[in-house]
Amino acid sequence: MTTTNFSLLLALLLCTGGVARTQDKKLTGYADTAATRQLELESRFDKQLSSSHIGETIRELSSQPHHIGSARGKAVAEDILQRFKSYGWDAEIVTYQVLFPTPKERLVELKGPTSYKALLKEPALKEDATSGQAGQLPTYNAWSADGDVEGSLVYVNYGLPEDYEYLDRAGINVKGKIVIAKYGRSWRGSKPKVAQEHGAIGCIIYSDPRDDGYYAGDVYPKGAFKNEYGVQRGSVMDIVIYPGDPLTPDIGATANAKRLDRLQAPNLLKIPVLPISYHDATPLLKALEGPVAPEEWRGALPFTYHIGGGSAKVHLKLSFDWQIRPCYNVVAKLKGSEQPDQWIIRGNHHDAWVNGAADPISGLAALLEEAKAIGELKKQGYQPKRTLVYCAWDGEEPGLLGSTEWVEDHAAELKDKAVVYINSDNNGRGFLNASGSHALETLVNEVARDIKDPQTAISLQARKQAAEAVKAATPKQKKEKLSKQGFAIGAMGSGSDYSSFLQHLGVPALDYGFSGEDAGGEYHSIYDSYDDYTRFKDPGFQYGVALSQTAGHTVLRLANTVTLPFDFRKLYETVNGYVNELTDLTTNLRESTAIENQLIRDNKYQQVTDTTKHLTAPLPKSEVPYLDFSPLQNALTGLDTATIALAARKTLTGATVNKALYQAEQQLLNDAGLPARTWYKHTLYAPGFYTGYGVKTIPGVREAIEQRRWKEAQEQIGVVAAAINRLSAYLGGIH
Amino acid sequence: MTTTNFSLLLALLLCTGGVARTQDKKLTGYADTAATRQLELESRFDKQLSSSHIGETIRELSSQPHHIGSARGKAVAEDILQRFKSYGWDAEIVTYQVLFPTPKERLVELKGPTSYKALLKEPALKEDATSGQAGQLPTYNAWSADGDVEGSLVYVNYGLPEDYEYLDRAGINVKGKIVIAKYGRSWRGSKPKVAQEHGAIGCIIYSDPRDDGYYAGDVYPKGAFKNEYGVQRGSVMDIVIYPGDPLTPDIGATANAKRLDRLQAPNLLKIPVLPISYHDATPLLKALEGPVAPEEWRGALPFTYHIGGGSAKVHLKLSFDWQIRPCYNVVAKLKGSEQPDQWIIRGNHHDAWVNGAADPISGLAALLEEAKAIGELKKQGYQPKRTLVYCAWDGEEPGLLGSTEWVEDHAAELKDKAVVYINSDNNGRGFLNASGSHALETLVNEVARDIKDPQTAISLQARKQAAEAVKAATPKQKKEKLSKQGFAIGAMGSGSDYSSFLQHLGVPALDYGFSGEDAGGEYHSIYDSYDDYTRFKDPGFQYGVALSQTAGHTVLRLANTVTLPFDFRKLYETVNGYVNELTDLTTNLRESTAIENQLIRDNKYQQVTDTTKHLTAPLPKSEVPYLDFSPLQNALTGLDTATIALAARKTLTGATVNKALYQAEQQLLNDAGLPARTWYKHTLYAPGFYTGYGVKTIPGVREAIEQRRWKEAQEQIGVVAAAINRLSAYLGGIH
Repeated sequence: MTTTNFSLLLALLLCTGGVARTQDKKLTGYADTAATRQLELESRFDKQLSSSHIGETIRELSSQPHHIGSARGKAVAEDILQRFKSYGWDAEIVTYQVLFPTPKERLVELKGPTSYKALLKEPALKEDATSGQAGQLPTYNAWSADGDVEGSLVYVNYGLPEDYEYLDRAGINVKGKIVIAKYGRSWRGSKPKVAQEHGAIGCIIYSDPRDDGYYAGDVYPKGAFKNEYGVQRGSVMDIVIYPGDPLTPDIGATANAKRLDRLQAPNLLKIPVLPISYHDATPLLKALEGPVAPEEWRGALPFTYHIGGGSAKVHLKLSFDWQIRPCYNVVAKLKGSEQPDQWIIRGNHHDAWVNGAADPISGLAALLEEAKAIGELKKQGYQPKRTLVYCAWDGEEPGLLGSTEWVEDHAAELKDKAVVYINSDNNGRGFLNASGSHALETLVNEVARDIKDPQTAISLQARKQAAEAVKAATPKQKKEKLSKQGFAIGAMGSGSDYSSFLQHLGVPALDYGFSGEDAGGEYHSIYDSYDDYTRFKDPGFQYGVALSQTAGHTVLRLANTVTLPFDFRKLYETVNGYVNELTDLTTNLRESTAIENQLIRDNKYQQVTDTTKHLTAPLPKSEVPYLDFSPLQNALTGLDTATIALAARKTLTGATVNKALYQAEQQLLNDAGLPARTWYKHTLYAPGFYTGYGVKTIPGVREAIEQRRWKEAQEQIGVVAAAINRLSAYLGGIH
Repeated sequence: MTTTNFSLLLALLLCTGGVARTQDKKLTGYADTAATRQLELESRFDKQLSSSHIGETIRELSSQPHHIGSARGKAVAEDILQRFKSYGWDAEIVTYQVLFPTPKERLVELKGPTSYKALLKEPALKEDATSGQAGQLPTYNAWSADGDVEGSLVYVNYGLPEDYEYLDRAGINVKGKIVIAKYGRSWRGSKPKVAQEHGAIGCIIYSDPRDDGYYAGDVYPKGAFKNEYGVQRGSVMDIVIYPGDPLTPDIGATANAKRLDRLQAPNLLKIPVLPISYHDATPLLKALEGPVAPEEWRGALPFTYHIGGGSAKVHLKLSFDWQIRPCYNVVAKLKGSEQPDQWIIRGNHHDAWVNGAADPISGLAALLEEAKAIGELKKQGYQPKRTLVYCAWDGEEPGLLGSTEWVEDHAAELKDKAVVYINSDNNGRGFLNASGSHALETLVNEVARDIKDPQTAISLQARKQAAEAVKAATPKQKKEKLSKQGFAIGAMGSGSDYSSFLQHLGVPALDYGFSGEDAGGEYHSIYDSYDDYTRFKDPGFQYGVALSQTAGHTVLRLANTVTLPFDFRKLYETVNGYVNELTDLTTNLRESTAIENQLIRDNKYQQVTDTTKHLTAPLPKSEVPYLDFSPLQNALTGLDTATIALAARKTLTGATVNKALYQAEQQLLNDAGLPARTWYKHTLYAPGFYTGYGVKTIPGVREAIEQRRWKEAQEQIGVVAAAINRLSAYLGGIH
């Protein structure tokens, strides 16, 4: 035992309150002595992390607006390149040529019964040093269609499919009209998509102060929340069809790639859409007449919300500069000593809508701090067994452009070499959020067990579990959370750069970030600035350090282990839970459909409805048949057996075995992809067709049930069962 | 069969859609031929009811402000007296002398950091003809203490006991401060009471537009909801101790009654309290700093709600004219032919805070329409078997003064003679609300089965059941509601004139009214006017007719029957449900207490709380012991047996049996009353100690459990079991 090891042990022995002592610290994939060495390495890694340096990085990289295609965006990529190089990494910029629209003309006018011309402008604030800079992208939704439309305005709540069911009952049709929807509940791109499906000719999205403004807390700059002029920019590309450059699905957007005609791209809208502030929304909403919006639709503006569809008319005029622009990914490598062809990939994007101190620079600064620390370890003689690949992506904001194009361009190589992709994005204060491949749940828990929460000095794991216990809804659930060993990691939807790795290629993935004590309204606005960040997000950058530790330890454990710590028992348990959800969902939907249809048939709705309100009964829905879940249930039995057997095997070492372990996730892909969106190949995880960022687990089956396509649901049960059976057979072959 | 009967039968046979045909119409307490005669009588009664006459009555009696003690209040009583007389009733005015305070001085000033002097005035509106009249009582809470206080302002949400638990956690003490609470959730009088218990020196109550204003719908006069200047007047007498004249508990407030010293009256506040509009509340709430109010506390005003307790200072100055004033009850009788000493009592108050078109005149107009119709039947030769007593109460608004004093004054006679008391109060459009003694549930259902809903032409019963099925939360509950025979009637809390009959004397009681499609913000404001009523409450007065039918048929069925239709099986079923609720409540409270205490002991709250927020963990609560519910459960078994046996007895007729039936409810009284409020004698029904109007069933046990007084809970189980055993033995003696 070296002195260093002894000090470490002593420190650990003195440490209490949730951070496990060394004797408890099983590291999956490591023998005891190797575990001690690894923990010592992590301790040295931690010593290189500096909260003030992370703060410096955030300040520097968010000092100017730096969206994709801007001069400053390119400069940021070059700055990052130099940083990697200075840390001792092999780094390069990998450039793609992607479509990216910027606004040429933006106009929203209320034409009657009153008139108002929307400001469409976030004002500079003296309390926010960068808020008045040149080079800001104006407030807009990228991938809106060009359009010049005028029509009656209809308030559609969050613009969800069920909101249109209510509009039907109220006798209000949006065909040929312009809708105004609130941000929230669904991903912003779903709102114009659903509006377009219902025949709307334009879509306005606004931030209601109930969800994102004074209702939540004091507004910027007094507090963190959205002031009346703040606007959330953002992409409305239909990423649930496919993300990345819309002109080059499935392939890298290299200079000479074959491109689609933009007007034929299946993930682009046909109608114009624009986000506005609640200051601009107020005269529009106030002008609406017609039925009073139902209670669940009402926001926090100080008047009665009406649905409209009558005399209130709006003119919406938008045009864009549809240019192909360079997209600069920075890719840095540190070659592995033993398995250079096994890659531990870590990434975070660098492009921002404006300054992006939180989104994405807070996550990127943590990533760069890891790279710096690993560079220091390298100077001290450390070399990872496996190759580390650190990436800073461009063009994430408009639709995961940089990462998707790189992944599509390197698909074969990644399927061969990628052990894992570890993502982060904006980072704040609070609790660890971890989502990803469930075979990595045990690793994530061991990592979180060994890192202290900056505020409470208990472990990240213990704090997260405490939060889950305190927040659980029922005494039973609280008890379960208290008695649970570790926490569950979430499933991945979309909204950041992990998507193509996991959902298109089947590369095991993780996403890390801290949040829960950093609420605010700066997201995608000019106020996502260093000034805002240092007041409201992570003022001392301690959670920046915690993110560096979490992602860094995960990288190092995967890089150095003899046996990769995939725990397929957790995958089995998780999928078992999903299948139970699906059978419950079907049963509940059958019961609720039957009783609702009976109420409708028996005229109960008409009998109950106020005759002065003209609200018709809902339409009956197709009755829910009994589905045959047995293929899935039998597949789970097989996975149960296979994963128990795999966990019992003692001698899983060597490059071949490790490669088999990390490629196991690929067995869960279905080459044909999901119904109506072939780009998404993973049978367990996808963004929801109507929820966007929000995940749907076992999406082929779940969405078919939710959308009442019974034949498809039954077919997809077979597809998913086949994937699970493939995985079980495959795991049986790992020796 | 007479021609008339034949026409009636034909009409009934032609009638469809939920109103039962004659062959289905079992009338409990009536033989078949008697039932036919009774239905024919009711049909003749119905023909006398005129919606336009009800409208006329509302217009006339609400034409001027007419609160207790006003000249117009006396004139209204005299007008009602003349109406009864003109309808052929023996009528008189029975006067009591009661305390009633009116404002001399009202002042609310924000003293810092900004200044504002509250308007405390509802403006006249050109759209509301009576809104500018002289003689209006100003906006105030009757029974506020006199006071001149100044202090830091604290926002206490709805002012519930649990709101103060949160304030404790946030480190904010209201001692020596002035609180501002929202109307809603608890009865208004509970708010200053709880504030006083916590050491506050003053209390302001305001109507938040989220609960009562533009959030709900367009504001008056455009729509029905509360505009920014509207104020809810109302009593803050602690009626849960005892209602009626605070100086004469338990006895009638006759001229020479022995009176308490006002400052010793146990149901009067020690601190000043005033209601204000949201216009006046806005500067006060905006001036608050300190922690942001938790989400459940936030209203619909367009700014961030803070808790305050710091520099925002308020001056509240109130003084009142504490006069003894005459209280004019109008009592009209129609003597019974066979059982003149068995009284069917029907009542509604006549005093209003201002004009009171809805509250109380809409209910009073229906009552007067019944009296008019019965008078017509009398002219046609009809005489009820039992005596009808129709009452119009004065002084209900300040605290059920008129009815309580009359009941206390006539206690012995009422315990002897009162078969039932049937109450109504303000009436609107929508669904029948019925609450009261559960032995009358079958009667109420038979009445509601035989009356058509004015809008849908199905029966009142069918419409109510449809609403319950549509609104039920889960498919299981919807199914239950659909398959249920009839609807459950509610249990009585307080807030109208039934209280003393049922809860003090054990007179079986019912309360009727229609609502659900008449929402608005006029309650206790100057805008509760004929103009408002005819636009938003019951424009065609059809539900006025429906109320006359419902109460009138109930009166007539009880007046004419050979055997009073008490169905003690329904009482048994209801109490059985309450006891199950109590055992579930105890179990759930035990489980939630145990797990919450564990979370607190294990420091989970501290671990989870944002360290910058300074929110302490909740305090541990006393663990919940196992209570012995067996006395109650055994008593229920006895009641089950006794009520089955009673229902099986065929020959329950005669004056003695009927008297025994209506006096059965008195067996449920406990002479000692409820703990800490001896006036309330009923063991099954009482207003909640902290909810005011809201009922607590089996209150002795339930409130002891909720307030964690375990010894008292066990004692009260014995008290209630004894009452039920008394009832069972008593019912066994009815032959």
